[in-house]
Amino acid sequence: MTNLEAFARELRQFVAEREWAQFHDPKNLAMLLASEVGELVAEYRWVAGGAADEHSRAVDPRRRIADEIGDVGIALLLLCDRTGIDLLQAMSDKLERNRARYPVEASRGKAERPQPPKG
Amino acid sequence: MTNLEAFARELRQFVAEREWAQFHDPKNLAMLLASEVGELVAEYRWVAGGAADEHSRAVDPRRRIADEIGDVGIALLLLCDRTGIDLLQAMSDKLERNRARYPVEASRGKAERPQPPKG
Amino acid sequence: MTNLEAFARELRQFVAEREWAQFHDPKNLAMLLASEVGELVAEYRWVAGGAADEHSRAVDPRRRIADEIGDVGIALLLLCDRTGIDLLQAMSDKLERNRARYPVEASRGKAERPQPPKG
Amino acid sequence: MTNLEAFARELRQFVAEREWAQFHDPKNLAMLLASEVGELVAEYRWVAGGAADEHSRAVDPRRRIADEIGDVGIALLLLCDRTGIDLLQAMSDKLERNRARYPVEASRGKAERPQPPKG
Repeated sequence: MTNLEAFARELRQFVAEREWAQFHDPKNLAMLLASEVGELVAEYRWVAGGAADEHSRAVDPRRRIADEIGDVGIALLLLCDRTGIDLLQAMSDKLERNRARYPVEASRGKAERPQPPKG
Repeated sequence: MTNLEAFARELRQFVAEREWAQFHDPKNLAMLLASEVGELVAEYRWVAGGAADEHSRAVDPRRRIADEIGDVGIALLLLCDRTGIDLLQAMSDKLERNRARYPVEASRGKAERPQPPKG
Repeated sequence: MTNLEAFARELRQFVAEREWAQFHDPKNLAMLLASEVGELVAEYRWVAGGAADEHSRAVDPRRRIADEIGDVGIALLLLCDRTGIDLLQAMSDKLERNRARYPVEASRGKAERPQPPKG
Repeated sequence: MTNLEAFARELRQFVAEREWAQFHDPKNLAMLLASEVGELVAEYRWVAGGAADEHSRAVDPRRRIADEIGDVGIALLLLCDRTGIDLLQAMSDKLERNRARYPVEASRGKAERPQPPKG
């Protein structure tokens, strides 16, 4: 495995062989992503923030976390492939907007602020 | 932007300049990921499955979806960077396990089955 | 079981007997909620929208869905109990705001619109 | 507002007046729930666990958190109403199973363990 594009091709073939594209409309894939992220969140829910780095290095948790990260990444790539949205481009565009939204001087050492309620 | 590693470096610099690593323990990043995925799910919640591909191509929804995919990808890469888990390796390992778990002949044309309840 | 308050008391006792309040800060409980909702979402991810009502009535899926709904409700009540936020009051306040936000005439037959991107 | 059943009736009327039942199949409602929980998670993502109780009491965060809890509760009740699953019953059944699953003596002072990976 050398890069994202090569992996995306492997993934597309995996889906094609199983004839799973019929289940992979973007709505279903957004749900797949949400459920996989839920499993990743479950890994950390009882771990204190200050112990989360150490937890991520311990052998068994690390194996599970890597497993869930793999699931999340696969779900995200399936959605990108289905919608034709380039993941690297989407991230790069967003990072550029974030640079403008969070100027270095004004943002240094401050957590991004929570959004105001919309309702 | 040519590849994932180069983008991960840019992202690391973006975080370092703002001194945000202090907020980015893996637990917080898992929550960031969950909240960003929630916004992506919101994009599709009222769209019928059969209309989800078309919705993903319409100009305004596509811009919003790409924006949310960018956020989700960034959150996932931040978590990978913090934990030292290689995203491509994690996805590749998982795909290999999925090949064994879902043999082509037995899986063809069948949605992955929901898991049994654990409680 | 006759009402929400009585159940909340039972739940509080369940937690107290196990000395779990130490794990139940609001941040952890928000993560518990997210992970339980992820399991509920998993139940519907491969089901077509038009088949989701029928799926919810089939014996085995219904048992699993009720199980996940129970988990989600418990996580939500644990968070309400910990923060001292009254669930019925919070829902009632929100419904009142939604009445103003979505006037009957202007909203009839229209799905709530997705929010504009915030980034 | 005196109880859950009365609120569920108000909510049903709110939906009926706007003719929104057409959008509220269980799959869409599961997505609504996931997106609302994502907003609740966002409230706590940069707050340290040890500061999460205090954060929940501060005026502005508390208002936003109550607002998001209201949204989550409403989404959960909409799903219960659509599927005919009684929320109190589902929670009560689950609590009973949890009593068996986590005996007091064996569980005292221990966080529920994360689930083993399923893949």
